[in-house]
Amino acid sequence: MSIREEILGQANKAKKAARKLANVSTELKDRALEKIAERLVNSMDLIISENKKDLEAGKRNGLSRAMLDRLELNPDRIKGMAEGLRELVKLKDPVGDVSQMWKRPNGLQIGKMHVPLGVIGIIYESRPNVTIDAAGLCLKAGNAVILRGGSEAINSNKVLTKIAAEALIDAGLPEGSVQLIQTTDREAVSVLFELNDYLDVLIPRGGAGLINRVVNESKVPVIQTGVGNCHIYVDSSAELQMALDIVFNAKTSRPAVCNAAETLLVHKDKAKEFLPKLYRLFNENNVELRGCQKALEIVPELKEAEESDWSTEYLDYILAVRVVDSFEEALDHISTYSTMHSEAIITNDYTRSQRFLQEVDAATVYVNASTRFTDGNQFGLGAEIGISNQKLHTRGPMGLNELTTIKYIVYGQGQIRE
Amino acid sequence: MSIREEILGQANKAKKAARKLANVSTELKDRALEKIAERLVNSMDLIISENKKDLEAGKRNGLSRAMLDRLELNPDRIKGMAEGLRELVKLKDPVGDVSQMWKRPNGLQIGKMHVPLGVIGIIYESRPNVTIDAAGLCLKAGNAVILRGGSEAINSNKVLTKIAAEALIDAGLPEGSVQLIQTTDREAVSVLFELNDYLDVLIPRGGAGLINRVVNESKVPVIQTGVGNCHIYVDSSAELQMALDIVFNAKTSRPAVCNAAETLLVHKDKAKEFLPKLYRLFNENNVELRGCQKALEIVPELKEAEESDWSTEYLDYILAVRVVDSFEEALDHISTYSTMHSEAIITNDYTRSQRFLQEVDAATVYVNASTRFTDGNQFGLGAEIGISNQKLHTRGPMGLNELTTIKYIVYGQGQIRE
Repeated sequence: MSIREEILGQANKAKKAARKLANVSTELKDRALEKIAERLVNSMDLIISENKKDLEAGKRNGLSRAMLDRLELNPDRIKGMAEGLRELVKLKDPVGDVSQMWKRPNGLQIGKMHVPLGVIGIIYESRPNVTIDAAGLCLKAGNAVILRGGSEAINSNKVLTKIAAEALIDAGLPEGSVQLIQTTDREAVSVLFELNDYLDVLIPRGGAGLINRVVNESKVPVIQTGVGNCHIYVDSSAELQMALDIVFNAKTSRPAVCNAAETLLVHKDKAKEFLPKLYRLFNENNVELRGCQKALEIVPELKEAEESDWSTEYLDYILAVRVVDSFEEALDHISTYSTMHSEAIITNDYTRSQRFLQEVDAATVYVNASTRFTDGNQFGLGAEIGISNQKLHTRGPMGLNELTTIKYIVYGQGQIRE
Repeated sequence: MSIREEILGQANKAKKAARKLANVSTELKDRALEKIAERLVNSMDLIISENKKDLEAGKRNGLSRAMLDRLELNPDRIKGMAEGLRELVKLKDPVGDVSQMWKRPNGLQIGKMHVPLGVIGIIYESRPNVTIDAAGLCLKAGNAVILRGGSEAINSNKVLTKIAAEALIDAGLPEGSVQLIQTTDREAVSVLFELNDYLDVLIPRGGAGLINRVVNESKVPVIQTGVGNCHIYVDSSAELQMALDIVFNAKTSRPAVCNAAETLLVHKDKAKEFLPKLYRLFNENNVELRGCQKALEIVPELKEAEESDWSTEYLDYILAVRVVDSFEEALDHISTYSTMHSEAIITNDYTRSQRFLQEVDAATVYVNASTRFTDGNQFGLGAEIGISNQKLHTRGPMGLNELTTIKYIVYGQGQIRE
């Protein structure tokens, strides 16, 4: 069987499963999530031994220590996956909710009902726990899912999806609800791109290279996730200690994630007081600052920033720093370089706070808080499958609600038009 | 200047305009809509003389009478466009509405604000009034729009967009808010497909050929519209006269539109009574019926349906008819052939009515009403830019709300994470 035929077979199964899943009770879905959690914990030894194969191959292939760490599954991480599924059980199932219902003059009663998207494809890199997190979220929202993980985690992903698939059939959910692409061949991804008659959406989770490839080549509708060139603008009226705390937190609490800050903009009236303190704090903590000309005039020890720094998502202990002459210049800079993920202003000026919220075009805009809060759990929305970076369908954290669409239901009594 | 350069220039202008439009008051947008309406009516002679050029070229190129009729602009139709804009003024502007706002345990206050999509591209065929309808809807929802009309209407579209662009600048809206692709070269469409850094969404309005090309080739996110292979299932418990009225209305009130019925499914226990009456009514009105083998046994005068009939969107005075042995067979047929647009059941059976609403996967599902109601105005949502046939972003009629997205606004007091 060719790769194409194999994946088409899976897509067919997924489509059939999706039709059934759309009409399954929340109770049954929750029972399946519990069963998967149970089996994961009971299969710990098997999972760890399969994961070892990936780790050994990774070492042979020279993966970095950070990469190997992301790849590793240990008892705590396996318990963590099970815990994540049990958290999902507690979340409200949006499917079947009718958010509005109204009556037309002709007596038609029209309602807007939340229904699953159908079949979701997810292409992701490295961390094998995404396999279970993503499958759980898709299932709870009534969707079938086809997963394509990274080749370095293939053995881990295979055993995890096998356990999940067995558990959900055991619970009474349809076969084909959760499937993994079994080959690591790159051709598989190209086949997924063509499946617009089977997949309702494709979600890439990974680096900019992966996301661009999916956007450029997929015929299946895509939700772009992730890339975050996030800015913090420290206004002339900012409270100094608050600004220092927020910038430090946004840059250093977890630099490798998309909601970490990458560029700091400082109003010129604040820069002389703020930048030396910032430099001291960051220097003590081994965080590199790359400054514009004006920043260097104030703190000559800074490394000089190049044009490319303004558009770089470092995902590292590096922050670009630019002094701006005005609030408007800050808005212009953000509008030019932002990836529209998370943008923050630190200010005590009412008008500027309102203008920033209104005028900055991003999934999340903050006044006086760290950009690191852009996250489904932090927002109180529950677990998320990623952060949407595009405007179509949804923006920001994508939880259960965002894995559904709507249908109109219409109750008539024989109405005809005109 | 090459076509590519010219369109890139327009896209740049549109992006700049969109940034301003997002923060323009409803009052100002409404004033612009009024001004466009006014200028259209005042420029009637000019519009009609430009439209004549298209009509004459159309005649030379052998356009059908129906096509020429769709192309024609007369005083009534021009007044109709102006009236449509004034109706838009009455509709509530969704931009800036915060639909929910909640407080987190750490004191962060998080709100979900409706904001414009940004820049919308619309590719459409034939009818020049779409130019004004689409531009008006996009503007009212705060979006800039780039229009690509059919080559047969190029002179009409040019004069209409020129009038609109002048009126909106006069009203104080930014230049570049409404633009038309000036060339009729097909290359222009390929250029639009590449503009994912400029366009937030591309909406094709037209036949299946156009829509497929856009879905297959565009890197810009697409909302598919239109194709409707709609079914009506007449259940064994249906009230006979209601079923006749609805089927007749759904097929004949306007057969060329996407919400017209294309296939009738009849339960076998109803078929003997229903089909002869249906045949008489349709035959009197010159509507062709194409039946399955079982239908032909009941009404031998029917033309025989082929397999391809079940998947054909006739858009004409033709209806395919199939007798099904059970409710489940009807659901299976719909699931196999439906384009998930509008599907109806005629029944007096409570359980089947509920199952149909629940289990049929379509943008709109009806009990005891004509599929012809799938329309923004009929639903009470106001004017629409099309009917979405996909699940991502939205389904069914797309009005002002559906031309917006959301952003999260977060009010903090210095919060940092962890």
